[in-house]
Amino acid sequence: MSENNFNIDGRNKVKRVPDRGHYDRETLYQILDDAFVCHVGFVMDGQPFVIPMAYGRKDDKLYLHGATTSRLMSSLSAGIPVCITVTHVDGIVVARSAFHSSMNYRSAVVFGTATLVADQNKEEALIVVSEQILRDRWPEARPPLDKEMKATTVLEVSIEHGSSKIRTGPPKDDKEDYEQPYWAGVIPMTVEYGEAIPDPDLKFDLELPQSVKQVVG
Amino acid sequence: MSENNFNIDGRNKVKRVPDRGHYDRETLYQILDDAFVCHVGFVMDGQPFVIPMAYGRKDDKLYLHGATTSRLMSSLSAGIPVCITVTHVDGIVVARSAFHSSMNYRSAVVFGTATLVADQNKEEALIVVSEQILRDRWPEARPPLDKEMKATTVLEVSIEHGSSKIRTGPPKDDKEDYEQPYWAGVIPMTVEYGEAIPDPDLKFDLELPQSVKQVVG
Repeated sequence: MSENNFNIDGRNKVKRVPDRGHYDRETLYQILDDAFVCHVGFVMDGQPFVIPMAYGRKDDKLYLHGATTSRLMSSLSAGIPVCITVTHVDGIVVARSAFHSSMNYRSAVVFGTATLVADQNKEEALIVVSEQILRDRWPEARPPLDKEMKATTVLEVSIEHGSSKIRTGPPKDDKEDYEQPYWAGVIPMTVEYGEAIPDPDLKFDLELPQSVKQVVG
Repeated sequence: MSENNFNIDGRNKVKRVPDRGHYDRETLYQILDDAFVCHVGFVMDGQPFVIPMAYGRKDDKLYLHGATTSRLMSSLSAGIPVCITVTHVDGIVVARSAFHSSMNYRSAVVFGTATLVADQNKEEALIVVSEQILRDRWPEARPPLDKEMKATTVLEVSIEHGSSKIRTGPPKDDKEDYEQPYWAGVIPMTVEYGEAIPDPDLKFDLELPQSVKQVVG
């Protein structure tokens, strides 16, 4: 097994439709890099919680940020196990049969432990998150003040274990159903950026900044 | 407190930016009804898992379906507590300051317990899921065979507890930052359906079915 592949164990093994499962870091990282909102799962008093959070990836680390006062951040920073999942829905797979109707998607499931990022590394980690949300915005914006940095908790999750699942392409129906006149195909789904809406309280006549231009074209 | 509102307790209380929190069923249901993929959180041996799944809502129930053989379905059907989260990312909030940069979003967090849907109610529950993914497709498709129904597990989750969080509108910066020439605004994000792609193995020259037309316009 290459060092770029995860070991397969009971936790990350894709059991259903195993040919959709991938265990290499490259595939996982591509899926992670195409989004900036993940779903973070953790346990408190036996109760599962799933909370959406912004994130950024750098190498084998994910960074999550939130307010120092939040329950989530204080729970997570205690070093508890987390499961972080990112899903792209790429289309509705319209099969001939109800049974084979499906979705095209790419999902990444990451297992790790959240730890607090030390004060001296916080800004670097925040830049990773900011870059993932809107590349090149950080140097354009007013930099964080000391009190703002203090009010921000950043967590680091080492990607210890993970797996990806991908489905692409047309439906796969039962052989005999192809002989029946049912329509079948895929309705693609994409996330689109609309035209930028300037803040109505802008007091200056400003061109769109480079970071925004890059996204809205 | 009206019967349409959830009791607020330690589990669902929105602590961060509490004015973004909502505790009424109507708001929760609107957020749930605008999607068909949720993130299901559950605990096995102390380890949290977060798995994306298709779902449908009817009244105060969510229905999830999967293969009878899957680890997920067998774990969930034991009647364990789940947390089901649905998130719409509606835009990037580009603030003047890095600190106030944010996202527009709508998220719904549901707490409940998954139970198995009995055989005689399975088809009705599957129709709820199918309708949520692609309205009116069910009667167009080849109906499920007995063996297909047997191979499908459907779970029902009563929405016992829940909360919604919504952020809309322009950035909210510090007062003094409005006097500086930083651009600020929102980049809207939407999920778009593309043109339907017929299965290359279609053997008949068929018009798009009504269900697909309704989505692709």
